[in-house]
Amino acid sequence: MKKYAFGVDIGGTTCKIGFFDTNGTLLDKWEIKTNTENNGESILSDVAKAVDNKLAQEAISKDDVQGIGIGVPGPVDSQGVVHRCVNLGWGVFNIERAFSDSFHGVPCKAGNDANVAALGEYFKGGGRGYSDMLMVTLGTGVGGGVILDGRIVAGATGGAGEIGHMPVAPGNTEVCNCGKSDCLELVASATGIVREAKKAMKNTDIPTPLRDMVDITAKDVIDLAKTGDKLALSVMDIMGDALARAIANVACTVNMEAVVIGGGVSKAGAFLLDFIEEKFKKVVFRPCGNVKFIMAELGNDGGIYGAAALVLG
Amino acid sequence: MKKYAFGVDIGGTTCKIGFFDTNGTLLDKWEIKTNTENNGESILSDVAKAVDNKLAQEAISKDDVQGIGIGVPGPVDSQGVVHRCVNLGWGVFNIERAFSDSFHGVPCKAGNDANVAALGEYFKGGGRGYSDMLMVTLGTGVGGGVILDGRIVAGATGGAGEIGHMPVAPGNTEVCNCGKSDCLELVASATGIVREAKKAMKNTDIPTPLRDMVDITAKDVIDLAKTGDKLALSVMDIMGDALARAIANVACTVNMEAVVIGGGVSKAGAFLLDFIEEKFKKVVFRPCGNVKFIMAELGNDGGIYGAAALVLG
Repeated sequence: MKKYAFGVDIGGTTCKIGFFDTNGTLLDKWEIKTNTENNGESILSDVAKAVDNKLAQEAISKDDVQGIGIGVPGPVDSQGVVHRCVNLGWGVFNIERAFSDSFHGVPCKAGNDANVAALGEYFKGGGRGYSDMLMVTLGTGVGGGVILDGRIVAGATGGAGEIGHMPVAPGNTEVCNCGKSDCLELVASATGIVREAKKAMKNTDIPTPLRDMVDITAKDVIDLAKTGDKLALSVMDIMGDALARAIANVACTVNMEAVVIGGGVSKAGAFLLDFIEEKFKKVVFRPCGNVKFIMAELGNDGGIYGAAALVLG
Repeated sequence: MKKYAFGVDIGGTTCKIGFFDTNGTLLDKWEIKTNTENNGESILSDVAKAVDNKLAQEAISKDDVQGIGIGVPGPVDSQGVVHRCVNLGWGVFNIERAFSDSFHGVPCKAGNDANVAALGEYFKGGGRGYSDMLMVTLGTGVGGGVILDGRIVAGATGGAGEIGHMPVAPGNTEVCNCGKSDCLELVASATGIVREAKKAMKNTDIPTPLRDMVDITAKDVIDLAKTGDKLALSVMDIMGDALARAIANVACTVNMEAVVIGGGVSKAGAFLLDFIEEKFKKVVFRPCGNVKFIMAELGNDGGIYGAAALVLG
């Protein structure tokens, strides 16, 4: 019986590392810098070194480690092949094999970071008990992850769960990073909410305290919407309509039991959850509409929990 | 080693029965009437009798039968529980257990008919070799089925793959059978195409031979579109835009390798396929856009092939 596992969440600036027992209890966590020099060639060996140090420090043999899970900021298919990570400078390679080879042959499993965070919420967070679920992360962008039968749906080229780029916001003038102008992300991310608020202030005369604020944030907009502010509510409507439609599209496709909402914007809490759920009920095909709306619970630790779940689940 | 399997496709008027060897070769097929009297209580025993007769006729022991797969016109979850079939009068029950109990304990597996047809195309039709695929059936309605890792995605309550009711046709005045007004089915089914053509003739002065036809069909519209008919092409645009967006939504969700198009409307052939693919490329998130567009090959036999695949796959 193995006793421990590691969950690693590789980001563009730091790598979060979690040390777990095989029940999935987080025993310790820390961060190391992500070195993206030379196309990120030292990232995996830096992680391996950090894990090795931890093992030495705790006087644990590598034979007691069940495996190491890794979340990556880019597409990873179900065979463990990374299909380019622009932020890290990585090309196409089998990260599971590469890491395992460089780390004493200990088993390694990898996934896309948003998908891995979804798995984390299923494993130990808000999605516990819902083996068919969608996670939506509303942050600077909009990420997503689909879990079916308790496992990540990775997709043919690791692109599954990319609901931030669903074409549900037609008629936008902004261009998304991906080159399209109808992505969910354009109206439902923190950035999108602020942009829509500025647009609404410019295009209407609706009075709102937002007009007196400098550097408004998505939180400002949602906080004002909670108080009934008309302009803020109109921005929330645009965001909520697109998000509800995207979730309904996923429901028609995989008929999940639950949707877990996370990311910075989700700190708006029950108000946001209820707002989206109400819109969802209106657009979803009823037989697929029995979906529980749940708040994410793990915050920034979702990635390390999910990464650990890759080798423990 | 078992030698045979049966694939049954239960419809509202007939049940198609296929007799297969365990390689999935269709040896014989026939139909029996679907008796929907008394809430369809005799349907399963009628099928069992028909299969029993076949075994007697061929002098085959039930011990040589690997299993019986059944496609059902309603939602079936992954546990084999039917969640109501309005057309048949059925309520909620475990059809796999019920059939197996009434048929000498021979294993039975069941699925929703559109999902089962998708599995059939993966098993022996246009989708061969694509273990992550979507099938879209363009007929009187619009059906769909999602295959991941070579298996049907059934969903929590058997509603997965219901892309006909994706909210991708906003602004419609018609109401779908499901009660909504933005379903793909409203513009992309044979019925929808005809309705849109009539609407376009009423609302515009665009000349078209359609105006001189009585009882126009979807085939008429597509045939004229092929010749460059402006009005017919405008109808195809509405259909194609909604369908492309629906397929793009599925691609963002599960990142499949292929989409197989079937149903009566698909007889329009390569013209239709190319038309939809071109629109798809414009709206899909590029990393999920490497999707092969393929024509279904099994026609009405897709259901019995897929049903057999449930027990042979």
